[in-house]
Amino acid sequence: MRPTGKLHLGHYTGALENWIEQQNLRAPDGSRLYETCFLIADYHSLTTSLDTSEIYGHTIDMLTDWLAAGVDPEKSPVFRQSQVKEHTELFLIFSMLITSARLERNPTLKEQVRDLQMESLTYGHLGYPVLQAADILLYKGSVVPVGEDQIPHVEITREIARKFNNHYPHPTKGEVFLEPEPKITKFSRLVGLDGKAKMSKSLGNTILLSDGPDEVQKKMRNAVTDTLKQRKNDPGRPEVCSVFSYHNRFSNPERLCSIEEDCRSGALGCVDCKRMCATAISEELAPILERRKQYEGNPGLVRSILLEGENKARVIANETMQEVRAAMQLGEQ
Amino acid sequence: MRPTGKLHLGHYTGALENWIEQQNLRAPDGSRLYETCFLIADYHSLTTSLDTSEIYGHTIDMLTDWLAAGVDPEKSPVFRQSQVKEHTELFLIFSMLITSARLERNPTLKEQVRDLQMESLTYGHLGYPVLQAADILLYKGSVVPVGEDQIPHVEITREIARKFNNHYPHPTKGEVFLEPEPKITKFSRLVGLDGKAKMSKSLGNTILLSDGPDEVQKKMRNAVTDTLKQRKNDPGRPEVCSVFSYHNRFSNPERLCSIEEDCRSGALGCVDCKRMCATAISEELAPILERRKQYEGNPGLVRSILLEGENKARVIANETMQEVRAAMQLGEQ
Repeated sequence: MRPTGKLHLGHYTGALENWIEQQNLRAPDGSRLYETCFLIADYHSLTTSLDTSEIYGHTIDMLTDWLAAGVDPEKSPVFRQSQVKEHTELFLIFSMLITSARLERNPTLKEQVRDLQMESLTYGHLGYPVLQAADILLYKGSVVPVGEDQIPHVEITREIARKFNNHYPHPTKGEVFLEPEPKITKFSRLVGLDGKAKMSKSLGNTILLSDGPDEVQKKMRNAVTDTLKQRKNDPGRPEVCSVFSYHNRFSNPERLCSIEEDCRSGALGCVDCKRMCATAISEELAPILERRKQYEGNPGLVRSILLEGENKARVIANETMQEVRAAMQLGEQ
Repeated sequence: MRPTGKLHLGHYTGALENWIEQQNLRAPDGSRLYETCFLIADYHSLTTSLDTSEIYGHTIDMLTDWLAAGVDPEKSPVFRQSQVKEHTELFLIFSMLITSARLERNPTLKEQVRDLQMESLTYGHLGYPVLQAADILLYKGSVVPVGEDQIPHVEITREIARKFNNHYPHPTKGEVFLEPEPKITKFSRLVGLDGKAKMSKSLGNTILLSDGPDEVQKKMRNAVTDTLKQRKNDPGRPEVCSVFSYHNRFSNPERLCSIEEDCRSGALGCVDCKRMCATAISEELAPILERRKQYEGNPGLVRSILLEGENKARVIANETMQEVRAAMQLGEQ
């Protein structure tokens, strides 16, 4: 995840809760099913803005949210790309294994250039799936939790892993890299409070993970619902209502059924519906707010967790690079 | 220089002798005019071939020639790109400071793609001037000795330095990078023994720096001269003769005048002319062959010089990267 500062519910449902689920999965024998690594992609943020003045503050804010949400630094090292030099080494090596034509065909890049109305593409931006491949393969990732729009990138990672393995078999271990599988998140997008397709900081239509119950109630009161439901007893259409989309994720299934029914019949007004929705969200956020207390206002603790994660990451990254160097006979001494 | 194995006279006149001249330049007060660093560009060789099996052997062979020719490891650290991780870090950062369109316009790249009949360009190949910029600026290069064809790359380096300095002023030092100047080599190309435009290993038309006098005489006997001068006393045209082009570089000026005159008049036959030319070349190579003895057959010594150079390079590279990080506020802790 790029260091975007305080996280909102869209980050939570689209990524973070899936990460934590994966972190905590257990095999039948009780052992952990996955070893998990969570990356703060500070170099990636340079692809869309060269302004670096807020990266560190955003990193600490975001990591505070990660920890509050349940990322366990004992289980999952957390670290910044820029602090583990091996990311850039592997990026350079991988840059030789993919054509620039292949990267230019990347549909997610095309979409991003259009959305951000970028006039010109930097060389680094063109190559960001190559850096992602390095981010994943440096830790021998087998499963990558991603949104739909990131699937083409995982495919590029698989191609690069295959090409490396073909060209550079390890003298004793055979193939150095796995071909990772994408694991698609269920709720990859959450609509904004203003009804726009995406909850997004720049659109100002978010509920933050750090918002307390009062703040959530307040924000929810301004949420956009079905514009044809003007009075309390008008029948509503849940399928066009942003509030219902939140119920769909945060309210329990029985309650969801009655809300849908009562909205359609006109029995449930938007004010009450929003109040219930805000309560459901705050119930889910309650343990996050509780865990948050130990990190908030303690940037020293968050920082030391980060530095420790970076030390762990460097050990793994260095092991992988030793295999890469042995396979490539690069820098043989 | 890429690790190309044993060097030939074209490498010597086109690059190496200029390096050594620059290494040994003195200011009026007797101090050295430049601190010099000489890079073995092993990562760059991946742009044109993914086969890495010979890189190490070629590195040792080439470095032996460097040392024989007068590169003084006490004055000039020698090192491999792949052994100093900071090259790849700076490469990644610089990749965000230049557009891919700018790199696609690079005339030297276009020429290379045409010459090598490459079907597709890798992403890393497209970006090799960015890696060169990192190679130069990591050591704060002020003067870069290059052939004509490399001038566009130095220009790219200057643009990147400028852009970095504009975006990321250092909190105390101001501009982190200098804009380096290219220093064009006088004899950037040497024709091949077969008369082809370029002396080149793959064309098999070379005299090696390690060739002894007998070998040079033998190779010279087969050199292509003016094809219209068929018999000893036919008048010749020095301007189309590969042997004369070697005289032009290796024979002293007075001798050169008489050779030109006697060739044109027909007084000098090709056999004698070639013998004189081989002698002139071997005279220049004699001290190189002499110095060579201490390194040849002693790869352990060459290797330890390399490792020591890499240690020195890492110290400089690390200092520069600390400035880069401070200027970018990247990884602030």
